[in-house]
Amino acid sequence: MNTFYETTTRVRYAETDRMGVVYYANFLIWFEIGRVETFRQMGFSYKEMEEADDSYVVVAEASCRYRQPALYDDVILIRTRVTESRSRTLRFGYEIRRQETGELLATGETLHVICDSSNRPKTLPEKYRRFFPLTTAESAKASP
Amino acid sequence: MNTFYETTTRVRYAETDRMGVVYYANFLIWFEIGRVETFRQMGFSYKEMEEADDSYVVVAEASCRYRQPALYDDVILIRTRVTESRSRTLRFGYEIRRQETGELLATGETLHVICDSSNRPKTLPEKYRRFFPLTTAESAKASP
Amino acid sequence: MNTFYETTTRVRYAETDRMGVVYYANFLIWFEIGRVETFRQMGFSYKEMEEADDSYVVVAEASCRYRQPALYDDVILIRTRVTESRSRTLRFGYEIRRQETGELLATGETLHVICDSSNRPKTLPEKYRRFFPLTTAESAKASP
Amino acid sequence: MNTFYETTTRVRYAETDRMGVVYYANFLIWFEIGRVETFRQMGFSYKEMEEADDSYVVVAEASCRYRQPALYDDVILIRTRVTESRSRTLRFGYEIRRQETGELLATGETLHVICDSSNRPKTLPEKYRRFFPLTTAESAKASP
Repeated sequence: MNTFYETTTRVRYAETDRMGVVYYANFLIWFEIGRVETFRQMGFSYKEMEEADDSYVVVAEASCRYRQPALYDDVILIRTRVTESRSRTLRFGYEIRRQETGELLATGETLHVICDSSNRPKTLPEKYRRFFPLTTAESAKASP
Repeated sequence: MNTFYETTTRVRYAETDRMGVVYYANFLIWFEIGRVETFRQMGFSYKEMEEADDSYVVVAEASCRYRQPALYDDVILIRTRVTESRSRTLRFGYEIRRQETGELLATGETLHVICDSSNRPKTLPEKYRRFFPLTTAESAKASP
Repeated sequence: MNTFYETTTRVRYAETDRMGVVYYANFLIWFEIGRVETFRQMGFSYKEMEEADDSYVVVAEASCRYRQPALYDDVILIRTRVTESRSRTLRFGYEIRRQETGELLATGETLHVICDSSNRPKTLPEKYRRFFPLTTAESAKASP
Repeated sequence: MNTFYETTTRVRYAETDRMGVVYYANFLIWFEIGRVETFRQMGFSYKEMEEADDSYVVVAEASCRYRQPALYDDVILIRTRVTESRSRTLRFGYEIRRQETGELLATGETLHVICDSSNRPKTLPEKYRRFFPLTTAESAKASP
């Protein structure tokens, strides 16, 4: 539990701004890449979850703390973990690091509600539950 | 015919890149704003065209010629006109100008195919035809 | 103090995603629009603050709570206020509403550090201080 | 000459729009990825070219022809080649394919002017010339 799943992406010119660093909203796009690749590494495709099981992981809250700027052409290491799993919600934690140096650039968190295509909350389908064992009071305490 | 429809937008920080100018792909987003506001000024809503009439103005070709950089916080004047109108296709021409000086920053063109929600080409519904009179051989010659 | 400054923007096609709603990272771009227009309404240009006074309002933290989806072509009301003002930091609070109905779509907050162009923290230049009176213990308590 | 350089990227949720396909401006971002990875595979870094040699590959023209929609989570194959190389300009051609099926999704072209950081055209520095042998009348004829 609370394992980090890792993936990388390279900073695009389009992601920089005139301050010469990555524009702050793009970190949330990287969080999304982290979630999707976490799902793939766990063993399922988010696309299929939407299309075959009418289950959307809809964002309810997002936050990011920026520590160091991400720079053009940097290889970015996106580290994602599940920090809370309830019947209808999932919470993820993120670390964004510069791959070359390991330097921590940002940390973040998102909270999601499982919804159907009409945006109505629903219980996470059983077939996905094994990837997201319910967070117990104990594990919730342990996770920072 | 060939009237320019005008609208403005202000350059966002997010749209700049580390060269200190607007990133080139964003001009295509401005073209889209130009098309949608052209439709609104003509008298209909593109959103309704999609939702009520299952007609999508799907892009088939886009081009842009960049002349001067667009800068952060500039008010951008987007000038759009219909340059060709056929039973299943529409062509638009664009001028992007710095509002304050009138300076021409870019020109562009897009070609679109009318499609249904399954991406199948269809004839433009009759109710929209009056906004897009068919281009005749003569008018086609006249339009640069 | 704690006045809301208001501006609007219309949802672009580019801002929607395949769920049919505005992609979550774009709310942070709207926050940025809110900040910049707040500065303009207060009486100064953020662009000049960067270029003439070497003072960048660098983001340190951002958070957003999503309540209702923003939809294509909606006119979005962005309400921004300064919630904390210290010698080197500024905090902003945001409300994102659907203009037509007044419906609250999201709330958010960002914390910023004033930096020079080398990304070194600095005190907010005196000429801008009058727009950002220092938050006292009292006003901090009053601001939610 | 005219070799294709290849790289891949996976379609992000952020890149889709409410039509359920990739928004058209994003193809120009993929072209940029294609250029930068072409440079890396040739043996130099575009970032260094900007920072160490004050040479920016500034876009003057871009065009794209869209054939099939790119879909969420698709692995996209970006194929890039140099189609023209002159003392101060470079032209690139692109193919965008769905990696899994090989299907051609789009073709495109960009023309660039080598500029210094003040946006003044300049001759491509000698150290980069070997990567971009001057296009002769013959090779220009051969390249479609």
